[in-house]
Order: sequence, then structure tokens, then C-alpha cells
Amino acid sequence: MTFAEIPMPLISRMPAIQSPIIPIVAEWIRQTPGTISLGQGVVNYPPPEGAIASLIQAFADPQNHKYQAVEGIPELVQAIATKLQQDNQIPITAQRIIVTAGSNMAFVNTVLAITQPSDEIILQTPYYFNHEMAIGMASCKAVRVPTDGNYQLQLDKIKAAITERTRAIVTISPNNPTGVVYPREDLRAVNQLCREAGIYHISDEAYDYFTYGVPHVSPGAFPDSADHTISLFSLSKAYGFASWRIGYMVIPAHLHESVRKIQDTILICPPVASQYAALGALTAGRSYCQPKIDQIATVRATVLGLLEPLRSCCEIPAANGAFYFFLKVDTSLSAMTLAERLVREYQVAVIPGETFGMTDGCYLRVAYGALDGATAAAGMGRLVTGVRTIVTA
Amino acid sequence: MTFAEIPMPLISRMPAIQSPIIPIVAEWIRQTPGTISLGQGVVNYPPPEGAIASLIQAFADPQNHKYQAVEGIPELVQAIATKLQQDNQIPITAQRIIVTAGSNMAFVNTVLAITQPSDEIILQTPYYFNHEMAIGMASCKAVRVPTDGNYQLQLDKIKAAITERTRAIVTISPNNPTGVVYPREDLRAVNQLCREAGIYHISDEAYDYFTYGVPHVSPGAFPDSADHTISLFSLSKAYGFASWRIGYMVIPAHLHESVRKIQDTILICPPVASQYAALGALTAGRSYCQPKIDQIATVRATVLGLLEPLRSCCEIPAANGAFYFFLKVDTSLSAMTLAERLVREYQVAVIPGETFGMTDGCYLRVAYGALDGATAAAGMGRLVTGVRTIVTA
Repeated sequence: MTFAEIPMPLISRMPAIQSPIIPIVAEWIRQTPGTISLGQGVVNYPPPEGAIASLIQAFADPQNHKYQAVEGIPELVQAIATKLQQDNQIPITAQRIIVTAGSNMAFVNTVLAITQPSDEIILQTPYYFNHEMAIGMASCKAVRVPTDGNYQLQLDKIKAAITERTRAIVTISPNNPTGVVYPREDLRAVNQLCREAGIYHISDEAYDYFTYGVPHVSPGAFPDSADHTISLFSLSKAYGFASWRIGYMVIPAHLHESVRKIQDTILICPPVASQYAALGALTAGRSYCQPKIDQIATVRATVLGLLEPLRSCCEIPAANGAFYFFLKVDTSLSAMTLAERLVREYQVAVIPGETFGMTDGCYLRVAYGALDGATAAAGMGRLVTGVRTIVTA
Repeated sequence: MTFAEIPMPLISRMPAIQSPIIPIVAEWIRQTPGTISLGQGVVNYPPPEGAIASLIQAFADPQNHKYQAVEGIPELVQAIATKLQQDNQIPITAQRIIVTAGSNMAFVNTVLAITQPSDEIILQTPYYFNHEMAIGMASCKAVRVPTDGNYQLQLDKIKAAITERTRAIVTISPNNPTGVVYPREDLRAVNQLCREAGIYHISDEAYDYFTYGVPHVSPGAFPDSADHTISLFSLSKAYGFASWRIGYMVIPAHLHESVRKIQDTILICPPVASQYAALGALTAGRSYCQPKIDQIATVRATVLGLLEPLRSCCEIPAANGAFYFFLKVDTSLSAMTLAERLVREYQVAVIPGETFGMTDGCYLRVAYGALDGATAAAGMGRLVTGVRTIVTA
């Protein structure tokens, strides 16, 4: 085979990266009208009305159509600083906040800023698939450390996974896909482990407002964490703001220059219309989000009750955060097979565990953030009937 | 030095990447009130009014606050397809258009999609700095091929630069930073060279509407180019849309899956508010842009006339596109030194050539897209006086 005959796509980094499963599930749903989706990682409410009003007001100044600051418009950065201090107890100094076009981008910025190719980043399995993909795209290695039977951190296993190539440990709390919340002492232990090893703690807190009866803990609030902790946040979930693509990151000051270069190259600046809408959303603030999250808590309780009959064939570990349950189904079927049959035969969609790195065993992610009570009830009914019928057949 | 003592930022890919010079120039300007900026790569007009109206209308449907398609909303993709067929003569089939958050991101998507670390991508010098930075961030090598004295392509030198690691050749026409437009036969030759070598032709056409008396040529319109040509476009310039961050790319169908994975990981979907605004802008269409560009052509003629006295100490190659001139100044001063003195002593800002890879000789980029006639006259007066005084001192 001569140089010119090499099929182009095969000599790229991308074929080794997993294909996201959500579009495949979306296609099953499209082919099966009437399906109830328990797949979507979104909430059931829109942003506060002040968001669009804030945007419209901003464009009274035509200068706002031009490029703005790489790290975000100053008013939004200030509003974020206030939020981080009040809600997350993270002390903020200048040059630590970078606004991004969603917190996926904040993770990509992070990986590029702290690695060279062949470096390692430790993920907890089940992991968030875009984290694993970002690490692969940067030509680094995602080192997978299993969580325990309740999807909690296994500190000894994390410590054992650290090598001279390790650059960071990632935690997501509240967790996607499992919904679990890590206790303070475990996050503290990971954070200290990172400091001692001279590596970063990447703390993904996209669901920080979504806890039910347990506290959210921000590792960036620990004393002496500022130089090695990278905290990632999002407006997508709390403010019903998914399509606007605004997230933000808190970084050690020594990474500021690197992250600025990365963001300038990928994005130049976060979309300014979205930033002003975000400013309007943050002005409404947590008092806008909390009653909606309280309603989701009610849906969650309904869901938990309705899932009870599944305990005969599933493990359903406690999950006090985000808006997910992560079921372990007692079957030899693959999760992909089970999930496809659930759509095609029972008109209910969940996300199969393979995409989160769970290939040994049959795991399903059930999302309830987008559902009203009636739809949740109908969806859980289908899920319970479907899973029980399929796995006992 | 133990592992924990290695300074964190030094073991990353980023310190080797250049720092963008524009913030440095911005800081000189901030310290020198009254400076006229000939630095900004933006136009002097806002988007059509229909842009924001289109956005407001879209959010009457609260579903638009949720994630939308990775490749862009269907209505915008369709409008882009129509534009590409009418204005660029690029034949469009399904799965070839990806909307991005600006055309910088389209370039990053491209580099990740087609490379492995250590691969090479050929740039023409002077190059667009974010291209070089993106290649470095992907741990690939930017191979620099000099253009000729008129900043035109040197086909023999490009051909000689191709190795077994080469994955693509980049052309930008109309060009940033030089303002030159490449003739059809040269773009055709590059495109054929790429096909024969089994590599991609990356054609950056962010300034496609900005030509003065010469045609714009899209390599994607050449027969047999569809499988190896990646064309990048932007709304930032033509529609005064810089802060909204909407660009788009036309890719070979075989790259669709790879680019989808990349975009899902970096962005999930382009900001939907910006996409609806873009749809409103494209609905106004080229008839909105053209009269504004005609006005810029008038400013350009004024600028050219006013620069005449500089020809005693500068080369000013012909530049029939974008809104730049790229001066070669006959001096032993560095461009950084000259540019800083022009701000501090003459209150006029230009971008020094080092950032575009021109370290051998003193080059200055002069931008005129953002100026009205009076400001252009005042700015050129300062520039002419300043350069002549400084270099003959």
C-alpha cells in the first residue's frame, strides 16, 4: 500500500475514541414513536426570564457584537466569583475563573493545559464518557479505577493507580452517571493525595445544587487546595440552560496563561449572548433553582418507590444527588441489548452502561430530571415491566 | 528533584505554545489613552436586526433550551447549504456540514480529526497564529513554508515540504494576516497536490465575501475535491457577528463520525441562541453584507492612498482581500519594538509580525475593517509619521 492509498480516516487518533451512545439511543427512539425517554441529562424547566432580557439589553451596545475577553465578560466573572464564595466556599482571587462554552469544554481545556501525550489521568468507573473521550483526543491515557458496589470511591485503589505519568485524578460529585454524592472525608483524602503526589485534583461539580439530604462538598474549599485543584461548573443543569453552553472553571493561578492560550485557540471568547443570558440567570440566582430542584426531589422519591419491584433482579445503590440512578441488572444480556429491547418492546429509553465504561455486567442509567410526576410514573412502569420480563424470560 | 517537586506547569504541552500577542497590544493601548487601533480583525457594522429577532422567536419553544443536534440545528444547516451552493459553488450532500462555535473551533476539530501526535501540517508563512497554536496543542508539528515577496503561494516549496508525516496543507484566502487573495490556478494546484499525496487541503475562507476586484475561489468547488477538502467558514466577519461565535466547516463524509465525536466532547452542540441568530443573519443574506463591504472597499482605497508615503521605507504588497495590509518595514528594529513605540509615542496600534511567524524582518499587520473614513485617515497619518520618524532616526 503506497502512502496515497492509505485510507485517510485510519491514520488518525479518532477511530480509537468511543462513539457516544446517546445518538444511537436517540435513533432507536426515533424509530419507536411514543417512547418515554429516561435517557436525557436535562431538567424539566427553562432558564429564568431575566436571562433573555439581560441578553437583549446587552446588545443595545453594538460593541458587544465584537470579540470580548478570552476569560469571559467581567460582569459574569464577578457574578460567578460571588456564587463560588457563597455557595461553594471557594476563595476566589483574580485570574482563577475562566468562563467556557459549557463544562465539557472546561474539561478539555484542563486536559490540554496539564498534559503531554502519553500522560495519564485517573477516572473512576463508571466514568462520564466525554471525560474519557477528551483524554483520548489529547493522546493521553484514561486510567480507570473501579468504584465500590455503591459507586463510592476506593481510595486504596486510586492511590495504587498513580504512576510517574499520572497528572490528575478526576472526581464527579454529585455523579453522572451514578447519582451518588461523595462524602467530605473521601474528597478530602483524594485532594490531599493529589497534593502529596504533585498532581491535580479535577473536581467536576456540574450538579452542585442537586443533592437530596446530603451536603455538596467543593474540594476547592479545602485549605491549601488552590494550587492543585481544578473545579468545573455548569449552568446547564441548575438553570435549565443546556443549549446556551455556559460553564466555568476555577484554576490554579499558575495555569491561567496556559488556559488562556487554549481558549483563545479553540473559542476566542465564550459566546457573548450566552454570557449575558448567564448573567441574567445568576442574577435570579439559587432562589430560582431551589424550588425546581425540590420538585425534582419529589419526582425522585416517586421514582425510587416505583423501582422497588426491580430489586428482585437489580441492585439499585443509594444515590443522593444529580438526577440519576444507575441500576445493576442481574442478567447475562449486555446493557446495549437490554436497552435496545426496552425501547423497541417497551417504549422506554435508558442509557446502557457500556458508554460509561461498564462492560463487565449489565448497567443502565435512569435519568429523572426531565420528567413530571405522571411521565415518571408511566416510564418507571414500563421499565419495571420490561426489565423483569426480559431478564426472567 | 522528586516527582512532587516538578513545577506543575512545566510538564505540560502548553509552555511550548506561543502566547497570543493581541492581549499584549491591548495592554499597550490601555496604557495609552487615545490610541487608534489598526489591530482589530473585526468590521465596523453589527449583524442584521433579524438576528436577535430570530433568537427571541426561537425561545418561544422551551425545548430550545435543551441540547440540540451536535452538528447544528437543521434549519441553520440548510441555510448554510444553500449559501455554500450559491456563493461558493460547493456541492453539498448530507453529513458534510458541521456548525461550530466559530471557525477557530472548526480548525481545532479538523486537526484532531485527521492527525496523530507528531504528524505534520503545512502552513504558509505568515500564518494565522491560532492555526499554529492548534497544531501544537494537538502535539503535531506546524511545517512553515514561506510565501513569496507578494505573500503568494510557492508551490514548489510546498511540494518539497511534504513528508510521510504530512496530513494536510492549509491555505487561507482571502488571507489573514496579509490580505492577499490566491488565484484559482494556485489553489487548484494545491488541491491536486493534496489529492495526489493522499493528504487533506484545509481551506480557511473566513473572509470569503471580502474581495476587491478579484474573485473568491473555493477549493471545495473543484471537481473531485470532496473527499480530501475541508473548508472553513465564519459569520464573524461578513455579518459583524464576532461575539456570537458561529462558524461552519464542510468536511469529507468519511470524517463525519470523527468530527461528531470531537464536537460532542468539546462543545456538545453549538450555542443554540447563536445558531438562531445566525439563521436570522443568513436570512438577511449577502445583500445585507455587500453594501457594508463596499464601504470597507472605499476605506481601503483611502488607506492605500494614505500609505503611499511609506513606500520609501516599506514594502506594501498588493492585497485584494480581507481587510489587512501586511507591511515589510526596512529597519533593523524588531516588529515588537516598533509596534510598542508606535502605540506609546504615536498612539496608533498595529499587530507585530512575530505572532504570524515572521521573525526574520520587521512586519506589521494593518487592519482597516473596523474604521470609518475619518478614523482611517487619522490612524494612517499617525502610522506614516510614526514609522518614518522611528525608522529614519
